[in-house]
Amino acid sequence: MTKAHLGTAPDQNIQSQQMHDLICRLFPICRSITGDGVRQTLGIIQEQIPLEIHEIPTGTSVFDWNIPREWNIRDAYIKDSKGERVVDFRKCNLHVVSYSVPFKGKVKIQDLKKHLFTLPEHPDWIPYRTSYYKETWGFCLSQKQLNAMTEDEYEVCIDSTLQEGSLTYGEHYIPGETADEILLSSHICHPSLCNDNLSGIALMVALFKYVNQEPRKYSYRFLFIPGTIGSITWLALNEARASSIKHGIVVAGVGGEGGFTYKRTRRGNAEIDRVFSYVLRNSTDASSILDFSPYGYDERQFCSPGFNLPVGCVMRTPFGQYPEYHTSADNLEFISLEALFDSVDKCISAVKILEANRAYSNQNPKCEPQLGKRGLYEALGGQRQTKVNEMAILWVLSLSDGSHSLLEIAEKSGYEFDSIKNAADLLAGHQLIK
Amino acid sequence: MTKAHLGTAPDQNIQSQQMHDLICRLFPICRSITGDGVRQTLGIIQEQIPLEIHEIPTGTSVFDWNIPREWNIRDAYIKDSKGERVVDFRKCNLHVVSYSVPFKGKVKIQDLKKHLFTLPEHPDWIPYRTSYYKETWGFCLSQKQLNAMTEDEYEVCIDSTLQEGSLTYGEHYIPGETADEILLSSHICHPSLCNDNLSGIALMVALFKYVNQEPRKYSYRFLFIPGTIGSITWLALNEARASSIKHGIVVAGVGGEGGFTYKRTRRGNAEIDRVFSYVLRNSTDASSILDFSPYGYDERQFCSPGFNLPVGCVMRTPFGQYPEYHTSADNLEFISLEALFDSVDKCISAVKILEANRAYSNQNPKCEPQLGKRGLYEALGGQRQTKVNEMAILWVLSLSDGSHSLLEIAEKSGYEFDSIKNAADLLAGHQLIK
Amino acid sequence: MTKAHLGTAPDQNIQSQQMHDLICRLFPICRSITGDGVRQTLGIIQEQIPLEIHEIPTGTSVFDWNIPREWNIRDAYIKDSKGERVVDFRKCNLHVVSYSVPFKGKVKIQDLKKHLFTLPEHPDWIPYRTSYYKETWGFCLSQKQLNAMTEDEYEVCIDSTLQEGSLTYGEHYIPGETADEILLSSHICHPSLCNDNLSGIALMVALFKYVNQEPRKYSYRFLFIPGTIGSITWLALNEARASSIKHGIVVAGVGGEGGFTYKRTRRGNAEIDRVFSYVLRNSTDASSILDFSPYGYDERQFCSPGFNLPVGCVMRTPFGQYPEYHTSADNLEFISLEALFDSVDKCISAVKILEANRAYSNQNPKCEPQLGKRGLYEALGGQRQTKVNEMAILWVLSLSDGSHSLLEIAEKSGYEFDSIKNAADLLAGHQLIK
Repeated sequence: MTKAHLGTAPDQNIQSQQMHDLICRLFPICRSITGDGVRQTLGIIQEQIPLEIHEIPTGTSVFDWNIPREWNIRDAYIKDSKGERVVDFRKCNLHVVSYSVPFKGKVKIQDLKKHLFTLPEHPDWIPYRTSYYKETWGFCLSQKQLNAMTEDEYEVCIDSTLQEGSLTYGEHYIPGETADEILLSSHICHPSLCNDNLSGIALMVALFKYVNQEPRKYSYRFLFIPGTIGSITWLALNEARASSIKHGIVVAGVGGEGGFTYKRTRRGNAEIDRVFSYVLRNSTDASSILDFSPYGYDERQFCSPGFNLPVGCVMRTPFGQYPEYHTSADNLEFISLEALFDSVDKCISAVKILEANRAYSNQNPKCEPQLGKRGLYEALGGQRQTKVNEMAILWVLSLSDGSHSLLEIAEKSGYEFDSIKNAADLLAGHQLIK
Repeated sequence: MTKAHLGTAPDQNIQSQQMHDLICRLFPICRSITGDGVRQTLGIIQEQIPLEIHEIPTGTSVFDWNIPREWNIRDAYIKDSKGERVVDFRKCNLHVVSYSVPFKGKVKIQDLKKHLFTLPEHPDWIPYRTSYYKETWGFCLSQKQLNAMTEDEYEVCIDSTLQEGSLTYGEHYIPGETADEILLSSHICHPSLCNDNLSGIALMVALFKYVNQEPRKYSYRFLFIPGTIGSITWLALNEARASSIKHGIVVAGVGGEGGFTYKRTRRGNAEIDRVFSYVLRNSTDASSILDFSPYGYDERQFCSPGFNLPVGCVMRTPFGQYPEYHTSADNLEFISLEALFDSVDKCISAVKILEANRAYSNQNPKCEPQLGKRGLYEALGGQRQTKVNEMAILWVLSLSDGSHSLLEIAEKSGYEFDSIKNAADLLAGHQLIK
Repeated sequence: MTKAHLGTAPDQNIQSQQMHDLICRLFPICRSITGDGVRQTLGIIQEQIPLEIHEIPTGTSVFDWNIPREWNIRDAYIKDSKGERVVDFRKCNLHVVSYSVPFKGKVKIQDLKKHLFTLPEHPDWIPYRTSYYKETWGFCLSQKQLNAMTEDEYEVCIDSTLQEGSLTYGEHYIPGETADEILLSSHICHPSLCNDNLSGIALMVALFKYVNQEPRKYSYRFLFIPGTIGSITWLALNEARASSIKHGIVVAGVGGEGGFTYKRTRRGNAEIDRVFSYVLRNSTDASSILDFSPYGYDERQFCSPGFNLPVGCVMRTPFGQYPEYHTSADNLEFISLEALFDSVDKCISAVKILEANRAYSNQNPKCEPQLGKRGLYEALGGQRQTKVNEMAILWVLSLSDGSHSLLEIAEKSGYEFDSIKNAADLLAGHQLIK
């Protein structure tokens, strides 16, 4: 039997400040889908969650893919004739196309330009680019930097390594009363980008703190993985475990502007979809719900047709729909304490409902039980109004036929989930439902 | 084989006047969930319906409940120091809280007030209160009466009895061609309240007169029972019969203002639900349809999950939503002949459709039969318009595949149920459907 | 395995001009449900389609019907006292009620009038009337002609024969890769009416030319049959073949004004219904979709409950909803090249989708396959936009679980069917779906 799990969320200010502090610490690290940046990031997260760190060797076959070589970078620059760094990796790690192969040499400007990426429509911003699976090198820079490059030839250096190594990810499993799992997953492969990546990591850490302190029906699995190849790797290595995942969310881009956004699972009407629908419908904030589409974050893999797991995705403004997305403008100023708190708060609300939700069976299904003799009904009849909790009791009795969950009763009755849950607890205490 | 049952409703004026006359005769009687008021009421109804009267002894176990002790009352009053009755049961039986235990004595005004109930927002009205399952006593009075009670001490008398006896209800069963039943139920436990209670009784009597004179496919069961405990008792004593109930309505509050209201069964899409939807959609009067909720009249018991019978509820303005509800203002002036007639008229329409509704099988399902040679189709082709009855014939032929009832054909085609029914009769007469 | 069948439609001007030429040739012929007019019509169609001509003897039993006697007519007139033809079949074959029995004699005007039909609301137009199954004779004439008939007696002649013979229809079957059939049917029983009848014949011929030149998964059956009795006859003689019909359309009234109209099959959600919904939704032209009703053209028979074939009906303004319907105003001026072309174009679009539509199975259903290594995905990551064809590829992979057809993927994703089809071809070429 599960007790009510309606714990109190930690104080809003402390919680969002802690999330922000973590983001600030992680911001400068140069992450990619492999390499020491990921290890360093997981090391910092480990201070707050006892993560198990997995290293999967280069070349390991994971479904249709192979673990790539490991990429690391020490320095990179473009120097002008005076020896001045006009593009400098040490100033911003977005300057190097992720997975750039090592390169050193003098390059004519017209040849160099084929390796340069800018955002002409935002001349101060540096774009973020990757080339994981095609061997090349490149620099990202602001349009203004490019405009200032007037010389004929530049000295180019990318001091990177791309060699046998491993792919690194972090995992933490919290057992609950049952082996049924709630999966929480965030990617950890972006360099100095705040909303797209670090906000998700911070939310996962806050969620861990909440879940870890509460009694729980479900077991929880937290994954901190490189995007795409990380979820493919985890699924390939844990194929048998996937069926234990009863609900899940991928968390990404939860600290920026825009209302909370939930993207449905491929199933479209999984319990997690209904829970987030309920949470958002019962909130006064602007928010939106998107149907599943096969583009996005790691839900693409969790929801692939061979798994079709009930995993949704939580965001604020969806990726690609805000101009700062995948640019240097997705920085510490772009995220807010309010958005971070609101995001984690709604996720905690969803977890609370998942924990409390279940279908009961009325033990007295033929006619109403006599509530009055159990003190569950007012003694004096004839009055116009029946109290909310009495109505909630009647709804739970009426629909507890084994096929309606408390969430469905809340949806059908229009009463709040908490009222329905309280009524169910009262009735269960009197052995009227089981 | 069932014939067309589209009998003619008795003349509107006579019918509604008879309903009103019955209400006037029943009005003065002090009813409760047990006692002589109920017996007297059933006796008057018996003049028009050959009711079988059931007496169920105090203490009989009915599901989670027990038949309570029987309550009777001869007199009750509050006298002032001059010996004048300032509150007098003989003037209005609402003055005593129903099931008040016997009491006699002098009571200080401050103690007496704990036993007094008023409606401050309607200073002239007397509220209606009950205390069936908690032993206490009390008086209901107008706020004006209370304001006039300025003395320190009053003489209080409740000359009631609460003792072993029985619960009384009336039942009448009209057999039809089949054992499948239509259940019609009204509560009979309210004292001098007109709309909430007596209007339902009057509608049941009128409906009996209609049904009794018509050929019928269904058997009909009329229940005149005390609210809640009465339906629980009937269901407990007739559990095996419940599965014969194919359709049912609880009738209550059908004489007051507001449009006709139908409250759906717990199933939500039972045939009775579709029938009333059809009747109301095809009427020009304002009306409304409510989803099931587990609060209300005896449909609460009939629709409890262990029975889940297809029993809806017919009303006008729903209980609790008009200020006169459960007050002395629900009196003879509150109800109207027009509302009574409209209510019974719509119920008769529903009964007619239930009687006529069935699914036929096209005996000639491959291509259309040649209607012309049977005189069912106009001889001269090429004209722009096809007559309504020819279209209805084509619809019945097309959808009589054993899985569409005539009502569903009416809904799908947009033609009136009567046209569809007439077409089916024509086709059945030619052995084209069965 | 089926290849892409997206052939090019012949040049619009040539195609619609050919349709119009055929209509002009067929226009003067006096057709009915039997007789030489039908044979002559089929002979002309045979110049373009190698039709098999069937002759079914009078009296043959076809379900509830019998093949009627064959009707032929040489001449008919009403002469005034001066011997002048005031109504002359040689001027317009609509003047005689179809299936009029032979008659010769002098008739008083008041008796004659019982045999005369006019359209008072359109005094210049001649109506079209038939009397296939009731032996009588009659003339149709304009109201103006009638007004001019001022004499007392007229000489009436109908030089027709109604005798043992046969019912004639034409059929052509084009085999495809599978025995699954697409049925295309048009009636051929109307005399000089252009839109209602001849436009359908012309569209069928154009569709035959298209289908015949393309590789095809489906087999196609073209029926040129008299209305009602023709489809009943075909179904009676080919009952066992009916189950091979996987999709079908009845074509009628496709050359006149008004937008393209598709009338759904009795099933309401057959694949042909979804295909035409898609075609019309993705067209900028005004168009409409009607639910099935059991009145109309030969879909009445194909969709009768004993067959319930997935056969819809394509039209422009539905029959009976334009004033020219079944009158002499449905002439060569009433139809347009534009309407004819648009009608055949939309039907070809539907055929293309039917041919290309199928459900694939993702051969790599666990996580996404690595598209990059197959050149199916852009190499440089991090950009805001993903190209249409990449999105289409992801949608096809996500929903190719054996239960979603390409059309359903197009509907669900919002991408065009062609994009989805192209993506599927690419993926099938890489053995990623099968």
